[in-house]
Amino acid sequence: MESLLEKIRPAALYITHGDSSTGSVQKIEGLGALCHKYGAMLLVDTVVSLGGEPFFMDEWGVDGVCSSTQKGLSGPAGISPVALSKRAQEVMKNRNFKPPFYLDIELLAAQWNCFGNTRQYHHTLSPPLLWALRSCLKEISKETLPKVWARHARNTAHFYKRIEELSLEFLIPNSEERLVTVTTVVLPKDYDYVEFVHYMRNKHNILISLGVGPTAGKAVRIGIMGFNSTIQVADAIADAMADTLIALKKSLP
Amino acid sequence: MESLLEKIRPAALYITHGDSSTGSVQKIEGLGALCHKYGAMLLVDTVVSLGGEPFFMDEWGVDGVCSSTQKGLSGPAGISPVALSKRAQEVMKNRNFKPPFYLDIELLAAQWNCFGNTRQYHHTLSPPLLWALRSCLKEISKETLPKVWARHARNTAHFYKRIEELSLEFLIPNSEERLVTVTTVVLPKDYDYVEFVHYMRNKHNILISLGVGPTAGKAVRIGIMGFNSTIQVADAIADAMADTLIALKKSLP
Repeated sequence: MESLLEKIRPAALYITHGDSSTGSVQKIEGLGALCHKYGAMLLVDTVVSLGGEPFFMDEWGVDGVCSSTQKGLSGPAGISPVALSKRAQEVMKNRNFKPPFYLDIELLAAQWNCFGNTRQYHHTLSPPLLWALRSCLKEISKETLPKVWARHARNTAHFYKRIEELSLEFLIPNSEERLVTVTTVVLPKDYDYVEFVHYMRNKHNILISLGVGPTAGKAVRIGIMGFNSTIQVADAIADAMADTLIALKKSLP
Repeated sequence: MESLLEKIRPAALYITHGDSSTGSVQKIEGLGALCHKYGAMLLVDTVVSLGGEPFFMDEWGVDGVCSSTQKGLSGPAGISPVALSKRAQEVMKNRNFKPPFYLDIELLAAQWNCFGNTRQYHHTLSPPLLWALRSCLKEISKETLPKVWARHARNTAHFYKRIEELSLEFLIPNSEERLVTVTTVVLPKDYDYVEFVHYMRNKHNILISLGVGPTAGKAVRIGIMGFNSTIQVADAIADAMADTLIALKKSLP
């Protein structure tokens, strides 16, 4: 990584913290200092990790973060939290081009009073979505972040145990590299992934996802996060998967 | 207008149907044919008019429409309906540049199955906002559009009468040029616009708006639209304005 940063000297390194397609988590710690050493900003996608995996923007020297509300934060989709470091704000203020209006985060920041009491108009905010996000953050604050992270770790570890008891394989062998919010499981040979997901949905009313991109046809993706990160939910999914394995086994040739 | 179109030959003419700052409505009929005669597309902003003013995209030869859900449609803000004519779709398909991902309406259309059963991923939709929009459109369908328009016309005409009885002036003298959803009213000399709006809010729990842009400090803007377009609401606002006029008169020097 360092040799590439030194060679390419990019303006920014963009990386996902949690990767939903493979169900892996990337270690961000240390990457900020490395990027800054070569004049690059570190931008991180925490869409599927925030609220599940520990994440420390300032400590890790992250300059830009984008996330979502409908994953670990337990909210509805439709609004995307973003955060910029002081360094990123400086870059934004000193840029010598004008981005399209809709993508002009400086105007957006002015609406949010980030630079004094400007309350400049950028777009009409969505009150119900803002309220929903506020309510989700309030729930997390009540539980406290360390406890939220511990709960995710505990319940997903329990789910791992159940998956192992079913003799199923994980797409990511090393449990420390697995994303706590999304678990990718490889089905035994001859099982049809589409059929498996459909059976889970139709018979058990549980929606799990097919692989996507690099994992299409190679894994099922099981999201256990936010409000749903409980032992009960983990057990319900594992029980349903056990039944589905048996049910679809019979129909195999 | 025609001489300008002939001289400039723009790719598109962008116009607002209803103008919220002045409370005026622009006659769109005939403009489509005129634009097409000179090779321009007609793009119309119906943010504050849709669901209040009659609007006929196809009949009027409009090529692109953007709107909002939180005005005449009575929904929450956060999602923006758009529509493109066949002509606009052709232009979009034949363009020789790539817009930024977030502004790529072709990808958005592919997600909405506009060109066959593609269901391509562009972004995660907001289920609660989509459901809210669907519910609003269902209400309008039940009432039927002609009745919705007639209701707006009737209740706003009633409001005009009440405003005239208060000897207040309209910013737009000709009632046919007034937008049915937003009425702009000029206060008598020596009244403070900010004070007026604050009194309406604090004393009567009614939120009306100050002028904006060309009407800042020159008018108050009163929105009566969607679910709120009723005789009761029109009367409640007029009664509160009458009281506010008296209350603030006393404090004048």
